[in-house]
Amino acid sequence: MLIVMKPQASEDDVRRVCEKIVSMGYRAHPMPGAQRTAVGITGNRGPLEPEEFESLPGVAEAIRVSKPYKLVSREIKEEDSLIHIGPPDGGVTIGGRELAIIAGPCAVENREQARAAAARVRQAGARLFRGGAFKPRTSPYSFQGLGEEGLEILAEIRREFGLMIVTETIDPENCDLVEKYADALQVGARNMQNFSLLKRVGRSKLPVLLKRGMSATLDEFLMAAEYILAEGNYNVILCERGVRTFADHSRNTLDLSVIPAVKRLSHLPIIVDPSHGTGKRDNVIPLARAAVAVGADGLIVEVHTDPDHAISDGYQSLFPEQFETLVEQITAIAGVLGRTVASG
Amino acid sequence: MLIVMKPQASEDDVRRVCEKIVSMGYRAHPMPGAQRTAVGITGNRGPLEPEEFESLPGVAEAIRVSKPYKLVSREIKEEDSLIHIGPPDGGVTIGGRELAIIAGPCAVENREQARAAAARVRQAGARLFRGGAFKPRTSPYSFQGLGEEGLEILAEIRREFGLMIVTETIDPENCDLVEKYADALQVGARNMQNFSLLKRVGRSKLPVLLKRGMSATLDEFLMAAEYILAEGNYNVILCERGVRTFADHSRNTLDLSVIPAVKRLSHLPIIVDPSHGTGKRDNVIPLARAAVAVGADGLIVEVHTDPDHAISDGYQSLFPEQFETLVEQITAIAGVLGRTVASG
Amino acid sequence: MLIVMKPQASEDDVRRVCEKIVSMGYRAHPMPGAQRTAVGITGNRGPLEPEEFESLPGVAEAIRVSKPYKLVSREIKEEDSLIHIGPPDGGVTIGGRELAIIAGPCAVENREQARAAAARVRQAGARLFRGGAFKPRTSPYSFQGLGEEGLEILAEIRREFGLMIVTETIDPENCDLVEKYADALQVGARNMQNFSLLKRVGRSKLPVLLKRGMSATLDEFLMAAEYILAEGNYNVILCERGVRTFADHSRNTLDLSVIPAVKRLSHLPIIVDPSHGTGKRDNVIPLARAAVAVGADGLIVEVHTDPDHAISDGYQSLFPEQFETLVEQITAIAGVLGRTVASG
Amino acid sequence: MLIVMKPQASEDDVRRVCEKIVSMGYRAHPMPGAQRTAVGITGNRGPLEPEEFESLPGVAEAIRVSKPYKLVSREIKEEDSLIHIGPPDGGVTIGGRELAIIAGPCAVENREQARAAAARVRQAGARLFRGGAFKPRTSPYSFQGLGEEGLEILAEIRREFGLMIVTETIDPENCDLVEKYADALQVGARNMQNFSLLKRVGRSKLPVLLKRGMSATLDEFLMAAEYILAEGNYNVILCERGVRTFADHSRNTLDLSVIPAVKRLSHLPIIVDPSHGTGKRDNVIPLARAAVAVGADGLIVEVHTDPDHAISDGYQSLFPEQFETLVEQITAIAGVLGRTVASG
Repeated sequence: MLIVMKPQASEDDVRRVCEKIVSMGYRAHPMPGAQRTAVGITGNRGPLEPEEFESLPGVAEAIRVSKPYKLVSREIKEEDSLIHIGPPDGGVTIGGRELAIIAGPCAVENREQARAAAARVRQAGARLFRGGAFKPRTSPYSFQGLGEEGLEILAEIRREFGLMIVTETIDPENCDLVEKYADALQVGARNMQNFSLLKRVGRSKLPVLLKRGMSATLDEFLMAAEYILAEGNYNVILCERGVRTFADHSRNTLDLSVIPAVKRLSHLPIIVDPSHGTGKRDNVIPLARAAVAVGADGLIVEVHTDPDHAISDGYQSLFPEQFETLVEQITAIAGVLGRTVASG
Repeated sequence: MLIVMKPQASEDDVRRVCEKIVSMGYRAHPMPGAQRTAVGITGNRGPLEPEEFESLPGVAEAIRVSKPYKLVSREIKEEDSLIHIGPPDGGVTIGGRELAIIAGPCAVENREQARAAAARVRQAGARLFRGGAFKPRTSPYSFQGLGEEGLEILAEIRREFGLMIVTETIDPENCDLVEKYADALQVGARNMQNFSLLKRVGRSKLPVLLKRGMSATLDEFLMAAEYILAEGNYNVILCERGVRTFADHSRNTLDLSVIPAVKRLSHLPIIVDPSHGTGKRDNVIPLARAAVAVGADGLIVEVHTDPDHAISDGYQSLFPEQFETLVEQITAIAGVLGRTVASG
Repeated sequence: MLIVMKPQASEDDVRRVCEKIVSMGYRAHPMPGAQRTAVGITGNRGPLEPEEFESLPGVAEAIRVSKPYKLVSREIKEEDSLIHIGPPDGGVTIGGRELAIIAGPCAVENREQARAAAARVRQAGARLFRGGAFKPRTSPYSFQGLGEEGLEILAEIRREFGLMIVTETIDPENCDLVEKYADALQVGARNMQNFSLLKRVGRSKLPVLLKRGMSATLDEFLMAAEYILAEGNYNVILCERGVRTFADHSRNTLDLSVIPAVKRLSHLPIIVDPSHGTGKRDNVIPLARAAVAVGADGLIVEVHTDPDHAISDGYQSLFPEQFETLVEQITAIAGVLGRTVASG
Repeated sequence: MLIVMKPQASEDDVRRVCEKIVSMGYRAHPMPGAQRTAVGITGNRGPLEPEEFESLPGVAEAIRVSKPYKLVSREIKEEDSLIHIGPPDGGVTIGGRELAIIAGPCAVENREQARAAAARVRQAGARLFRGGAFKPRTSPYSFQGLGEEGLEILAEIRREFGLMIVTETIDPENCDLVEKYADALQVGARNMQNFSLLKRVGRSKLPVLLKRGMSATLDEFLMAAEYILAEGNYNVILCERGVRTFADHSRNTLDLSVIPAVKRLSHLPIIVDPSHGTGKRDNVIPLARAAVAVGADGLIVEVHTDPDHAISDGYQSLFPEQFETLVEQITAIAGVLGRTVASG
C-alpha cells in the first residue's frame, strides 16, 4: 500500500498516518517529494483497504501495490496447472495442449432428452457432459430441475456413454448429494461469491468449475478461486461466461480479454461459455471460435436435440448438427495455435 | 409476449410461430400490419423468454409485455406494506410515515466495541441495531465474523438497550442459528440470487432485509423478493446499496432513482444503505440526506466509536457525532416531506 | 507515477526501468523492499500513462499518484468559484449560498411555445431559461432545432421576461452564432470530449455549462473542464446528468455521489439535470429533491406547457404546476442546508 | 410501437391513448385481452419515444417494435456492402472475402518515425496505413498531433510505399483539410455522436471509418452510421474498439459479440481495433486472432518501431516483429473461415 499525501498536508498529518500504520502492526516508510510526501507500508500479510487511510486528514489517496490473492497466483506456481476430471486411468485433463469441450443440455429434463443429447455430443467427440439437476432460476415459478432424479440420469449417462459429468451444486448441503454423482462440481455465476458454498467445494475431492460472476472484477474472480484453494482443493477450472454491461444486443457481454489476463496472473486453466456468454444460438459458434483463438483452454456449450421444446435456455442451445460444425471449426482454429481438441 | 416478424417473413414463418405457441399450450394472435406481422401470445402463466422465439425463422424480435413478478406487485396489492420488526407490543414499523434508521458497526468485533456503538446510536435515537456476526468477505484471509459469540453479544444488546437486532445470515443452515437471536434477517448483496437462502428465509417467521445485488436489474431485485414471498414470508424490506458501474470515484454507484421506481411497481418498503453505497465516510451524510429526500423509507448506516481501528469497513463508518448530525439533518428533511424519524 | 516491480524481477529489469524514466527526462527513485522493488518517478509535468511502463520486463504495475488536472483543482484554488451569468449589474451567480434553477423546454419549437414556458417558469421564480435551438439527436430524422430563428426567440424571451438564456452550442463554427444570443453556452453530454468545441468555448467570454459524458469518469469530466480553463475561460459550471449503466428502469443512472466528489477535488460549481438524469417525468421531482439534499449548486429542468405535444423529450418535461411544486419542495430542502433558491 | 395498458386501466384511459396517437397523425389499434389491453401504433415514419406514452394515465409500458435506422439496414439492402478505399484501379476493398489490415503508429510524430513504421507494415503485407495528424486527447497538455505537417508526411508515405492512408478528422472545418490528403476519414470513438462531424463526412467523397463510442448501444452505433448515409455517403466501415464497463483488467472491454450482431442487422462491413480495445500490447495478438475468428472484416492495429519512445499509446503498440506474427496467425485463422488477408 502506498499513501499519497496532499500537497498541503502538514507534518502532523504525515506523522498521524505513520502512527496509524504502526498501530496496525506494519512498518511505515515516509518518502518526502518536491510537491508532496508519500508513505509506503510494508509488513502486512493480507490485503489492506485503501479507504482505511483515505479518510485521514491530509491523505490524497491510498493505492494498492500488491495483489490480494496468493495460492492462485503465478508468483506462487509458475507453470500451468493441469486439472484432471474423471478416473485416473481415464478422464480428461484441462489446461494442457488439448482443449476440453463440455457439452449437453442446460437442464436434465428427462431420461430420453438427456440420453439423446449425450449420444449426439459423444458422437461429435465430446468427453465431458453438462446438464443441470438443480437449476438456479431468476423466477421462483420457473423449472428448478429434477433434483436427485436428474443426478441418477447423469450417472446412467456416464455408464452408458463414458462421458464425464459436470453439474451444478447450489448450496453446501446440496453439495453432499451432488458429490456422489458428479465428476466435477460447477459453481454458477450467481454463486461466485457464495462463500459458504466456495468453502464447501473447497473441501471436496472433486474438481470445481467456477463461473465468473456477472459483475466480478478479475481480482474478485481470482479471490473466489482462492477461497476454494485455501480449503485444500487445488483443482479449480475458471470459466468466463459474460459480464453485465449497458450493451443490449446480447444477453451478456463476453469478455474475452479476461483470458490472456488470467493466464498472466494465475496458473489455473480457464474455459469459456459462449452459450450464456451471448444468450443467442446464432452467436454461439462465432464466439466459440473467438474463445479458442484468444487462448481459452476449452468450452462449455449447451446442446439440445430439440431446442424449441427445451424447458430452459432452448434459444441459446445448439442443434446437434451445429455442435458438430462447432467442433470442426474450433479443431481447425486450435490447430493454428498448436493445440488439439480432446475427443474420444 | 409479442412476436414481431421481419418485413420479409413468409406466411409459413408466421404459421410456424403460431404452431410453436400452441404447442407450448398458449394461444396465438396473429396481427397482420402494412409492413410486417406481429403475433401476440396469451394464456401463459409464468414468464416467457424472448430468446425462445427469436431464433425461429422470420422472427425479428420477441418482446415481453407483462412483468414476471406477482406477489410483490402493486397490481396484487395496491396499498403500501408495513413491515413490523420486533415484538408486537414494541418494535418498529417500516414503510409508513416514520423513517426507520438501522445503525451500528459493520461487524461485531467484541462485546465492548458493540456495546459502545449501541449506546451511542441508541442515544442518537436509533431503534434498530446492525452488526454482522457472519461476514461474507471477498478474501478468505479477512475476518469472517465472531459467529455465534457475536449473536450472543447482539442478544445482550437487545436486552440492555432495547434495540431491535438486524443481522446477516449467509446460508440456509446458518439461518437456523441466526433466527434464534435476530429480530430481522439480512440477506447481503452477494447473496441476492442465492436461491437456497431466499427460500429458507421465506420460511422464516422473521422479517427479511433484502439487499440489491451489485448488478441486479429492478426486475431481478423484485424477483428475488418474490422468492421470499412465494414461500409465505410477506415481510420483506428492500435495500438499495449501490450498483457496479465504470465510475471509480466511489466504491459503488448509489442508484437513488430505483426508489421511486420500486414505489411505483411494488408495495414493499425500500431503504438505502449510504455506507456501502458510497464506500467513503465523507459521502455518507450527503447521500443519506439525498436518500431521504428521494423518498426512501429508512436508512441502514455503519457507525463505529473507533472507526480507525475497526476490523472491517472502518473507512466508511461514521463517528458517533457524525451519526448524530446525520439524524438531525435527515429529521429536518423528512419534515419537508411530511415524515418523521422513528426514535426512542 | 510509481512503478511496482514483480518479486522475481532482476536488477537488470530495475535498471532498464530507471533508464527509460531518465531517457524521458524525469528522475527515477528506486526503493528496494523485502519482497519487491518499487521505482518512483518525479519531474514529469503532464500525466504519464501507466501502460507506458507496464510492458517493460519485470514490471508488475505502474500506478498514477497525482491527478492529471491542475486549473480545475482545489490544490490550485481552495475557495469555491462563483460563476456569474448575465449582466454584471444583474444576472445570477452560481456556486454560492443561492441555488440556481435553469428551466424551460427541451427545444425551442416556436415563439408561442417558448414564451408560454418562459412565462410560467419566470412566475415560479426561475431566473435562467433553457431551450435548445440546435439539438443533437440520435436519429438524423428527428427534429434538429430551429437554428438561428430559435436563438432570436430566446433573445426576445430575455428582453420580455428578464430571463438569462442558457443554450447549447454544437460545434466550433456554430459557437460564433450562439455566442451572439446566449448568456451561457451549454456543451452537451455527447460533446464532453469534443475537444475542438471545448477549445472554442474556452476562448469565449461567456460562462460554459459542461455536461458530464454518458460514460465519463470523474477524471475525464474534470479534464474536459480543464480544456476550457486552459484556454482562458474560468467560468465553467459542471453538470451531472446521469451515466450509462446496465440498469434499465431509468434512461440513465443519476450519479449523485459525484457531487461531493467534485466538491472535494475542484472549486467549480456543479448542478444536476434530473430530467435527462432519469428520463421520466415522475422521477424528476424526487431526484431534484435528492440533488439539492446532496449539495448540488442548482438544477437544470425541462418544463413544457404542453408536454404531450412537445417535439422532443416531452415525456420527461414537467408540467408548469409540477415545476412550481418542485421549486417549493427544493426551497424547503435548501433551507435545511442553510441555502436559498435564487428567484426573481 | 405497442402500448401496454395496466390491468386496472379504464376505458377512458384507453381512449385517451388512442386519441393521442391519432392527434400525432398515426393510427391506433386497440387489442383487448383477458387481463389487459394493448394498443398498436402504425403509420409513423420515424422512431417514437416510449416515454412519450408511458406518462399517460393507465399506461404500463410502451414498447418499440421497429428499428429506427433504415439506410444501414439489411431490410433495405440484403447483400454485404463492399467499400473501396483508394484509386479505382488499385486500393483495397473491405467487406468481401479478403480481410483488410490497417496498421501504423497511433500518431505521426515525425517523418522518420512514420516512414520506419510504414516500411515495416508494408513489408509485412499491410496495404492500409494509419497514423493521426490530429489527436483527440483526454488532457489538454498531451501531444495534439503535428497537424497539416503530419498530413503531408502521410501523403509522402502513400507515394513512397503505395499504402492507402486512413487518418482521423476531428471537426467539420478540419475535415476540409484532412480530405485533401487522406484515402479514408476516421471518426473517433469520442466523436461518434458529434453530429456536425457526421454530417460533414457524410458529404465527403471519401469512405469513412466510424468507431463505436465508448458506451454506444448497437442501435446508437448504427444510427451514427445512418447520419453519414443519410447525407449521401454510403461508404461507411464500422469499427468495434471496446466499450466501457466495470472491468478493470483492460482499458476497455472488447465486445466481439457485436460483430455477428451487426452482420445480422446491417450490410456495412465491420472491423476491430484490438489496440484500443485492450490497451495492452500483450493482449493485441490474442484479441486480433479472436476478432478474425468471430468474423470481422479486418483489423486496425497500432505498430511502432520504437514503442518505448512513442509519444502516445506506445504501451499498446506492437513491435514490427509482433505485427508480422499477428499477420501470420490471422492469415491462418482466416483460412479456416475461407477468407484471405489482403496483402501487397
